Amino acid sequence: MSGYILHYAPDNASLIVRLALEELGVPYRTALVDRRSKAQRSAAYLALNPAGRIPVLETPDGPIFETAAILLWLADRHRNAADLAPETSDPLRGRLLSWLFYLSNTLHADMRLLFYPPDLPGDTFPKNLHERLADHFALLNAECAAGIVMGRANPMICDLYLAALLRWPALYPTDGDRDWFDLSCWPALHALAQRIEALPSAIAVAQAEGLGPTPFSNPQLPNPPEGSAL
Amino acid sequence: MSGYILHYAPDNASLIVRLALEELGVPYRTALVDRRSKAQRSAAYLALNPAGRIPVLETPDGPIFETAAILLWLADRHRNAADLAPETSDPLRGRLLSWLFYLSNTLHADMRLLFYPPDLPGDTFPKNLHERLADHFALLNAECAAGIVMGRANPMICDLYLAALLRWPALYPTDGDRDWFDLSCWPALHALAQRIEALPSAIAVAQAEGLGPTPFSNPQLPNPPEGSAL
Repeated sequence: MSGYILHYAPDNASLIVRLALEELGVPYRTALVDRRSKAQRSAAYLALNPAGRIPVLETPDGPIFETAAILLWLADRHRNAADLAPETSDPLRGRLLSWLFYLSNTLHADMRLLFYPPDLPGDTFPKNLHERLADHFALLNAECAAGIVMGRANPMICDLYLAALLRWPALYPTDGDRDWFDLSCWPALHALAQRIEALPSAIAVAQAEGLGPTPFSNPQLPNPPEGSAL
Repeated sequence: MSGYILHYAPDNASLIVRLALEELGVPYRTALVDRRSKAQRSAAYLALNPAGRIPVLETPDGPIFETAAILLWLADRHRNAADLAPETSDPLRGRLLSWLFYLSNTLHADMRLLFYPPDLPGDTFPKNLHERLADHFALLNAECAAGIVMGRANPMICDLYLAALLRWPALYPTDGDRDWFDLSCWPALHALAQRIEALPSAIAVAQAEGLGPTPFSNPQLPNPPEGSAL
């Protein structure tokens, strides 16, 4: 199948979908969302994703939004291309879904609060948030060490998702406290970051979005060939 | 298939899974999680769900956690019993997944902040949160009015999930401001609440957990036959 258009901004959540598209080897085009002009809040974009967030994947079945929804949909539709998720009848399906939703509604949701904080007095909330995020990473480290549906030699969608979620807290917010995040505290996550960034798919994505040579294990601020990450 | 055990507490997120189990008509047992003794943080419970949240569904394939993960897994495994989600090849699959993840990582995640607020000075954060939640409900009202994957005559998993998310802000936090939530502002959501609570499955669940006659459109505090909601 072809005809996919990924609406993206460099180093945004669209990066995760791009990893999956490259890993599956399916053809796609990209459409840059100009965050500087808040294009993700334009009428044209809201018609694709009423929540106004990046990414959207346009498909022959219509637009799909929410990073994890796109990941799961792609894995299920293209399982002849790569084994990115256990199929419905597989005994591991439930475990993969559990962690996929956990990544989406807990780790990623808390990270959105970190990067786009609600309007708050003082800095109490971010401190509490750092502790919560560290707890999430500890939990994920244990699951990756178990190597059942995350942390295996061959990545699945949760691994691709998690790799990006290991990148951002090392870099963002650029003007905030990032000392709380130390990937070396979580060896199985560090190994996952190194394993994912060595994939040809990840190298292609890093090149396309200007993410540098070690985008997950030791990231640097992006230098994208087009658009802006912020 | 049988052998399901739903770990639940009355009027907790487990309620959503119970609705799906009843709607599918598959046999299951329940195991009460005693929130008063924080049983969800016990070693035995964390072995089922390391995140320590309710619900968990024990299955012959092992435990599954995360409400939405369980919903999707049940819908896919029991599609001969009821059509609670479009199948993978269906053109509507992507749209259902988009909204399922949106419910999980945006509406439900923000609602967790409302019910279990981080330790914060003053009340700035909840006010900001009320506006965000009202925006989410407006968006969902529009999607339900469209009647494509939510708000249809025959409910799917997103409808069951959303119905419960319409109940809680009318009741909780019991000692907090709830005036911001007025279901009559969102007619398609109000209609959905009424449609879901009229289902035999929902009547059975309301009875089992002591939720009263109109648990979604005009809820009252639960009076559960066993356990405690808080």
